Amino acid sequence: MTNEVVPPENFSHVVGEIYRSSFPRVENFYFLKHRLKLKSVLVLIPEELPPENEEFLQEAGIQLFQVGMSGNKEPFVNIPGDELTRAMEIVLNPQHQPILIHCNRGKHRTGCLIGCIRKLQNWSLTMIFDEYRRFAFPKARALDQQFIEMYNDSDIKRIASANNWLPIQW
Amino acid sequence: MTNEVVPPENFSHVVGEIYRSSFPRVENFYFLKHRLKLKSVLVLIPEELPPENEEFLQEAGIQLFQVGMSGNKEPFVNIPGDELTRAMEIVLNPQHQPILIHCNRGKHRTGCLIGCIRKLQNWSLTMIFDEYRRFAFPKARALDQQFIEMYNDSDIKRIASANNWLPIQW
Repeated sequence: MTNEVVPPENFSHVVGEIYRSSFPRVENFYFLKHRLKLKSVLVLIPEELPPENEEFLQEAGIQLFQVGMSGNKEPFVNIPGDELTRAMEIVLNPQHQPILIHCNRGKHRTGCLIGCIRKLQNWSLTMIFDEYRRFAFPKARALDQQFIEMYNDSDIKRIASANNWLPIQW
Repeated sequence: MTNEVVPPENFSHVVGEIYRSSFPRVENFYFLKHRLKLKSVLVLIPEELPPENEEFLQEAGIQLFQVGMSGNKEPFVNIPGDELTRAMEIVLNPQHQPILIHCNRGKHRTGCLIGCIRKLQNWSLTMIFDEYRRFAFPKARALDQQFIEMYNDSDIKRIASANNWLPIQW
């Protein structure tokens, strides 16, 4: 199979030209560049990228956004709502799409961001959590789901409305 | 939350205007009609639809396709490759899209069909199975994964090429 392509683990289409995955590795670069034809990548971890990923993005002309989040780990670490809003603002801007969102495993930080996008699409919390858990398995966090439920989307709604980014497709 | 929408369980975007889910219930109809704006539905179970689903599809002007499959249950029941090819032919035809594929739980029969679509996209088997298991959890079947691996896609490739349906988006 010479033309085999390798999407990153936990890869999925989210909506429109927004995608999610775990941390892309060298074997995924072809897929990201030639199949998804990414315009940008939003990385949700605070650490620097490995040099091969930096080089790939540069060579492929893919814009890198980074909003370093710590994840919702007990007992005292929390994703600040403001950072989530900043991440949403990057993702929803059509000029940045097609865009791939990823953290390390594509489970928790990415799952929180996708859950907040689903809130903007008015999905019921039950179905938002159903999706969250599908990707977070076997490490679903109640704190993440609580974060999604409690996230105050008034700022991002205001920003998105002012830019005519709403409604999000379906 | 007056505008809340309820996607069916195990709902996901597959690629382009192809979607997957479990069996839609009354509370999902609004989402299917007004958000996804479905043109057709492909049902993979052999049984008749409940009257409320029949009525919904008719009222919403959504075309119903049905390819009744028995699922890969041990020891002797198998999805015939020809039926899978017939289902693929319905799904890949752009005139039928946006299209929703569903069986009962959206795990096994639907998972097999999606896996075969991923083969046409040249995904590595590892990543095809990663996706299959995410939706089949906690009931992943080795037989389903073997079916996907063994599925002979020469017929559907010939049909799809003749109709200019290839390559599938990413």
